[in-house]
Formats: sequence, C-alpha cells, structure tokens
Amino acid sequence: MKNYKDYVNHSRKITDLHMSMAVLGWDQETKMPKNGSKFRSQQLSTLAEISHKLSIDNDYGNLLLKLSNDNSLDKDQSRNIELSLKKFEKSKKYSSDFIIEESKLISIAFQKWRLAKENNDFTIFENSLENLVELRKKECELLGYKEHPYDALLNEYEPGLTTSEVEIIFSNIRDYLIPFIKKISCEAKIEDSFYFQYFNKDKQWGFGINLLEKMGYDFDSGRQDISAHPFSTHFSPEDARVTTRIDENNLSEMIWSCIHEGGHALYEQGILSKNYGLPLGETISLGIHESQSRLWENNVGRSHAYWKNNYNSLKSIFPEQLSEVSANNFYQAANNVKPSLIRTNADELTYHLHVLIRFEIEKSLIEGSISVKNLPSIWNAKYKEYLGIDVPSDSKGVLQDIHWSHGSFGYFPTYTIGSFYAAQFYNQALNDIPNLENEIEEGNMKNLLDWLRKNIHQHGKRYDAQELCIKVTGVKLDFKYFMDYVKEKYTKIYSLK
Amino acid sequence: MKNYKDYVNHSRKITDLHMSMAVLGWDQETKMPKNGSKFRSQQLSTLAEISHKLSIDNDYGNLLLKLSNDNSLDKDQSRNIELSLKKFEKSKKYSSDFIIEESKLISIAFQKWRLAKENNDFTIFENSLENLVELRKKECELLGYKEHPYDALLNEYEPGLTTSEVEIIFSNIRDYLIPFIKKISCEAKIEDSFYFQYFNKDKQWGFGINLLEKMGYDFDSGRQDISAHPFSTHFSPEDARVTTRIDENNLSEMIWSCIHEGGHALYEQGILSKNYGLPLGETISLGIHESQSRLWENNVGRSHAYWKNNYNSLKSIFPEQLSEVSANNFYQAANNVKPSLIRTNADELTYHLHVLIRFEIEKSLIEGSISVKNLPSIWNAKYKEYLGIDVPSDSKGVLQDIHWSHGSFGYFPTYTIGSFYAAQFYNQALNDIPNLENEIEEGNMKNLLDWLRKNIHQHGKRYDAQELCIKVTGVKLDFKYFMDYVKEKYTKIYSLK
Repeated sequence: MKNYKDYVNHSRKITDLHMSMAVLGWDQETKMPKNGSKFRSQQLSTLAEISHKLSIDNDYGNLLLKLSNDNSLDKDQSRNIELSLKKFEKSKKYSSDFIIEESKLISIAFQKWRLAKENNDFTIFENSLENLVELRKKECELLGYKEHPYDALLNEYEPGLTTSEVEIIFSNIRDYLIPFIKKISCEAKIEDSFYFQYFNKDKQWGFGINLLEKMGYDFDSGRQDISAHPFSTHFSPEDARVTTRIDENNLSEMIWSCIHEGGHALYEQGILSKNYGLPLGETISLGIHESQSRLWENNVGRSHAYWKNNYNSLKSIFPEQLSEVSANNFYQAANNVKPSLIRTNADELTYHLHVLIRFEIEKSLIEGSISVKNLPSIWNAKYKEYLGIDVPSDSKGVLQDIHWSHGSFGYFPTYTIGSFYAAQFYNQALNDIPNLENEIEEGNMKNLLDWLRKNIHQHGKRYDAQELCIKVTGVKLDFKYFMDYVKEKYTKIYSLK
Repeated sequence: MKNYKDYVNHSRKITDLHMSMAVLGWDQETKMPKNGSKFRSQQLSTLAEISHKLSIDNDYGNLLLKLSNDNSLDKDQSRNIELSLKKFEKSKKYSSDFIIEESKLISIAFQKWRLAKENNDFTIFENSLENLVELRKKECELLGYKEHPYDALLNEYEPGLTTSEVEIIFSNIRDYLIPFIKKISCEAKIEDSFYFQYFNKDKQWGFGINLLEKMGYDFDSGRQDISAHPFSTHFSPEDARVTTRIDENNLSEMIWSCIHEGGHALYEQGILSKNYGLPLGETISLGIHESQSRLWENNVGRSHAYWKNNYNSLKSIFPEQLSEVSANNFYQAANNVKPSLIRTNADELTYHLHVLIRFEIEKSLIEGSISVKNLPSIWNAKYKEYLGIDVPSDSKGVLQDIHWSHGSFGYFPTYTIGSFYAAQFYNQALNDIPNLENEIEEGNMKNLLDWLRKNIHQHGKRYDAQELCIKVTGVKLDFKYFMDYVKEKYTKIYSLK
C-alpha cells in the first residue's frame, strides 16, 4: 500500500497547485486591483510550469505503471490509477517548449482580442488567432486521433467524444430543432419588456442569494461575488464559489446566471472530500458539468413550477415593476424564443444554433478548409443563414466570445452536449422522484439535489460520461430527450398546434 | 550575463510561490468560507514545500557561488547575489524533517491556542508551546549565533540585531520612558469617552478609505477589506493590500488601523517593480517595515497637524457624536496615555512596556531559565510590575497574542525597534522638508511620501537596517529621537512641568 499512498500524495500535490492557481484566478476576476495583472500572470505561469513538471515526473510515471499492474488495489483505486496514468501519458506528449509557446501565444492573443473587440477591428486579432489555430493543429498531431484531428481537441473537454458524434448531434438540431424554432417564430411574440425596467442592484443581489440557498448551495462551503463574466470555480468541495453579474436594467441577467453557476457549484460541492486530489475527486467532463448548470438553469429554473414558487417573493421585492405581471407572464417571458446576436443572452432553443455555428467554424479551421482572415464574413453569413439576423459589427459577431483568445477550440460543443445530458437526466429524475414538480412548486429541492448527489456528483470520475449516462438513464446520450422536453414545454407556451 | 539571468529567473520563481501563498493567505483571512480551511492549509503547505525545495536547489546554489565571484556584476547585482547566497546558505541549514515538524507543530499549536483562549485555559496550549520552544531552541543551535541563542531568532525578523542591542533599548525604556509614563499618570485624565459612541460602519469605512487616499495609497495597486485582525500583505508592488476592522462602538479601532496598515502598504507600493523577485525588490526587515506603519500611525496620524486637517471632515460625517468635541479634544484623546491589558489597544508609550514584557519572557524561555508552565504567573507578575494592572484572565493575559502559537519568537521586539526608527526617520523628514507640519495641516502628504520613497522605499534591501538608518539620518538607531519626540509631544498634551 505504500506505493498507492505515495501516488495519492503526489497526485494531491499536483491538485494543490491547480487549486492554488484557481484561487489566484478567482482573485484576478473578482478582487484584484487594476495594476495587479502583470505579476499575477507571471505567478500563474510559474505555478503552471511547476505543476506540469510534477505531472510528468518520471518517478511518478513509474509508480503509476507499477500500480496499474497491482492486483491488490480495489476498484476505486484501480480507476484512479487508470485515469492518472492516462493523464500522465498525455502530459508527457507535451514538450516544455510547447507549453511555453502556448502560454505566450495565449497571453498575447487575449490582449489582442480585447483590443480588437474594443475597437471593433478583427484584423488586430487575426494574426494571433492564426497562430493559435496553427498551434492547435500541431497539438492534434502530437496527441493523435482516430478519425478527425478535431477529435483530439474535443477530448480536452469531453473525453471520448468524437467529431462524428458531434456531427450527429448537430444534424439532429438541423433536422428537428431548427424547424421547431421556425414554427415558434410564426406565433405571436411574448411580451417581456418588463424585464428591462430599473431593478435595484442590492435587491437583486439579495434575491439571487436566496435562490442559491433554496437550491441547497452551501454558503459555508462557498460564496458569491460580482465579476464581469459570471463563472464558478472551486478550490475543494468545501470551497466552491460562484460569481454573478447584475444589470440594473435587465432582471434576467442576474437570475439565470445565479442559478446556472449555482448548478455548477452544487456539482463541485457534491464531490466527496475524501477523494480530493484524485480522479474520483474530479468532475467527469465539461459536458457533464454543463448538464448540472443547465438542468438547474433551464429544466428547473425556467419551469412553471419553479416560478410558481419563487415569483411571489420576487414580486414582493419589486412590487412596482411587476405590479401588472402575473407568475405565468413571468414564466412565459423567461422562455421567450427569439433569434439574437449574442450567444450568452440566447434562449434555450436558439442557443444551440450559436454553438452549431462555432462548431462548424472550428472544425473547418482545424481541417484547414477555411482561413482565419475570412472568419468575419463566414461568421456573418452563418448568422444570417441559421438565425436570420444581420451582424452589425465584428465586436458583436466573431469577436464576442473569449474562448478562441484563450486558445480553446473544441469547448463550445460541450455547452450543447450539456443541455442534452441535462434533459435526459432531468427526465430520469422526474421518473425516479414521484412528485418532483410538486416539490419544486413548494420550493423543496432536497429530493432533486439528493438524486443528483447520489447518481452523479458523488461518483466524480468513477464512470466516464457515456457510462454515467447509461447507468443513470439506461441509455446513451439521446437528442430525443431534449427535443421531447422542448416540444412539450414550448407547445404549451406558444399554444402550438 | 546568462548566469545572472538564470539567477533572476530562479529567484523570481521562488518569489512567485511566496506571493501565491500570500494570495491564498489573504483570501483565507478575508473571504474564505468557513469550511474552506482544511484544504487551504494543505495547499499552503504544498506551496511552502515546493518553494523550500527551490530555495535549496543545488544548481541554484552553485550558480550563486559562481556569481558571487563574478567581477562583471554591478553594485546592485552584487548586492542581490550577496543576499540571495546568504539566504540560500541559511535555508540549507534546515532539513526537510525540521520543516515538516515545524509546520505540524505550528498547525497544532495554533488550534490549541485558539481553544485555550476561547476557554480561558492555558493548560490546553501549554504542551504545544513547550514543543515550539524546544523547536526554537534546536533552531538556534542549527542556525548558530555569536553571543546569545536568542540572536538567531531575532535575525529571522531583523537581520543583524543582537540580544544585547535589544537589552540596551529596553534598559533605555526602563530608565527614561517608564519614569516619564509615571509622571504623566500623576496628571489629570484625558476625556476620551466620546470615542465609544455608536459610529455607523459604512460611514467609518468611507472615512478610512479617504484617509488612505490622502496618504497617497494607490487603490489601483491595492485594496482594503475587512478581517478579524487588520493586516497588510502584498503580491507585488502593484498589488499591496490592507485590511481593517470596524467596531461600531469604538471609533479609534478603524482610524489608526487604516493609517497603520496604510503605512505598511505604502512601503510595499514604493518598492521598484523592476526588482520584483530579487532582494532589492524586498523590504529590509520587520523593524524597518514597522517604522513605516508607526511613522504614519503615530508621528503623523496622532499629530496635532494631522487632525487639524482631518477633523472637520470626520465631524461632518458624525456631527451628532462629535458636536461637543473640538479638534484639540480629539487630538488629545488620540494620545491618551493609560496602562492597559491588551497590547494592540495600547497608546504609543505604554505599548513598549507590553513588548518589554514579551521580550523578557522570550529571552528567558530560550535561555531555559523559566518554564512554560509558569508563564501565566510570570506574565501576570510582570503586568503588575510594569503596568500596575491586574490581569483578570489568561485569555486577556498570556494568551492574548497569536505570535507564539505561530511559533514566532523574536518578532515582538521589532515593534519597538520600528517605533524608534520611525521617530528618528520622522525627525529627519522634519529637518529635510522645511514646512512639513504646515503641509500636513493642509492635507498635503506628497512631500513626505516622496521623501520616504526616495530615502527608504525604493532601495529595497540595498542597505541593511543599520546602514539605511545612518544613510538617512547620519547616525545609528538612537533611542533619544523617540524620547525627544515623546517628551515634546506629551509635555504639551499633559501640560507637564
């Protein structure tokens, strides 16, 4: 058992470094004064370098090899070793030169992107983006792949997911979701202008905190702060934090970012502390992570039952603004389907068209079938094609997302995958918990959270995403659950025939 | 020059780790949720272990040796190498076993101390404290010393300071300060009850921020938060933070903690960024650091001129509470000399008797001439002897300070040294800046801050404490400057003959 203990110690050290980086990152986004960024970047890159060194340490590798042939390990221990060895072998493929070049390119690209976005001038970012695309192409070769180079990038975020699987998912979107959205768009518009009145910041904050508490988010093991872009992060299951953004002229911003990030953080708080620093103490993938945020945000947080419970307290906080608005009006407006420019503001249906566009572009970039300099026109054409809207500027178009400036390609599809897992998991929860919707109407989320804890959170990486999905729902990820959910919900909201 | 560059890179990495630890520490004291502490301690100890490894790396040691014989280095470069080599050699003296034992003992001792303080039961802490004293005794032998083992501990915080020098300082206190305090105590009491009214938290906060701004504290390179015990910390000269504590029933708590911590932070903000990660990018010693906080807190912040400027704005914030109080009343009450139980609440004169008591106890503990189990009675006897007061409980007596539970022995004297440096530096500033007191009366601190920047801050560790003192004031640290300042100020306040 000494070997296994040594493995645990080393693995925890790597995690301690990652968690320290997360603390520095959280501080950077929420508290750090303006001038702190230069040295903060340097500190982060030193921690990254050291953690990479520990990750590819030869003694550690030998230990993992030994342990992978050790029959005395139990199932969980073997699973930890299996995944740690996989990670080790992957880390080994990266030279330090690659790591250093990557971190340099990203640091420059991020600055250029910000500048480009501010000045609405894609050419400022173009060269950096080209470099990053080339770097990722190199990375695909370095990591290897079976069918498509883009598989290697997808696997960063969603282990095991292939480009062809994503293709199938998006062809389903093209075949079923897009026609359904078109059907909705023929109906009468939903009135949602009441969202865009003045809503005092502090009052919004208080309401958001209350929503998090009701979800079961534990403020003794987390906290909420304000940041430019809402996010969740964690330093252990006992310190999993969220941030939100408050727009005093748009109530929806804060509400659904609170619930969304809360869903992420509940996943982290549900990981078992005893597995800290080991694969079983880590969440499965970005797709499964997103399933937790989307399940709370959309399946729960945009449901009729949820607002039946929460609307009165919201109305008591903003009696003037909502005097003419019923719970049902509020619910309907929370589900207003309307093609829009900005992904992060999209409704839960057109959202996936934004992702589809990004997936098509990323795949073509990695294949080399399109070039970076044509991105703005390609982007705009796709927005016209899929969403029917004209993009007024690159800032609100191809430059809107941060992801590419961070060198993240293959990330976007996990948003869509996550929503589809969410629908499938939630469908199962409805089957397993007899009165779930009634409970939600009564503000009681305990059984739902317990169900998520038991079926998903506590396992960490015990199963991979597909295995978990089968274990929980009996079948592989299937688009049908999302489409069924969407059809039932929106047919009612829009009185579709 | 490649060697020097390699040295700079390695030294900066060690600093990056220390600064990362400081971020984690800041978060721990200001933001971390209750349950976050277990894994935070583990993360901090991993970072400490890695930074120790980097500090005693053999290649690094060889590089330092080579560079210490390199004639092509300029003066500043040579100074960096000289100090880094000294530090390396010192770090080398510690075995990993010592580091691990130390960190374990401290972690237990801190918990025991907290429990002991809460329960007013010294015996809970006794055993841990004994272990720590034994550890420090071992450390003194390990580090070596010329005259007295306690020298080795003093040097942790105040390089070069010896026990016999501290003895001289405290004998001055016994001979001159104590009789002066006795003289004051015969005079009429100063009325200060108006400090202990209700003062709204947010209004106090705003006033404190304003004081920091007026001192020249740069909020683009720092921030203030609330913590249980006020402190300052820094992650670079461009991110040097302060914290404060607000008691709504005691105005003085917030005011002088803001100014005190602000003084520390101005020192850090005045360090040159280009020297980040090198000795020239570090402050000299705790004594010099404390000179900066005390100079602002006492010599400036408790001066007549300072309140002539700031009192009106304070009064406009709290018009009711201060309606009957003149600027002069306020100034006098800020300098009320009154023996008290708790060091951190003491006035600037009796403060040094608290330190004296701790110094005598620490020295005897390290010599082995007293034993830990007798500390409470020794403590109480000394408080009776030096301050004339009865200690009602160990919680408010021997258990009041955190330092020993952190294993810090030799730290306390730097508080007194710092005050004396402050008096000597401030005397020089008054000589060098013709109208300094008038400027302060007008709320103009620019020339004072520039003087501190030029003469002290920018140098980092270019000089050691004693050298700096001679360079700035022409002579070595001399108690006379403090005593002169005290005599002049308090003779007026108390109308002494």
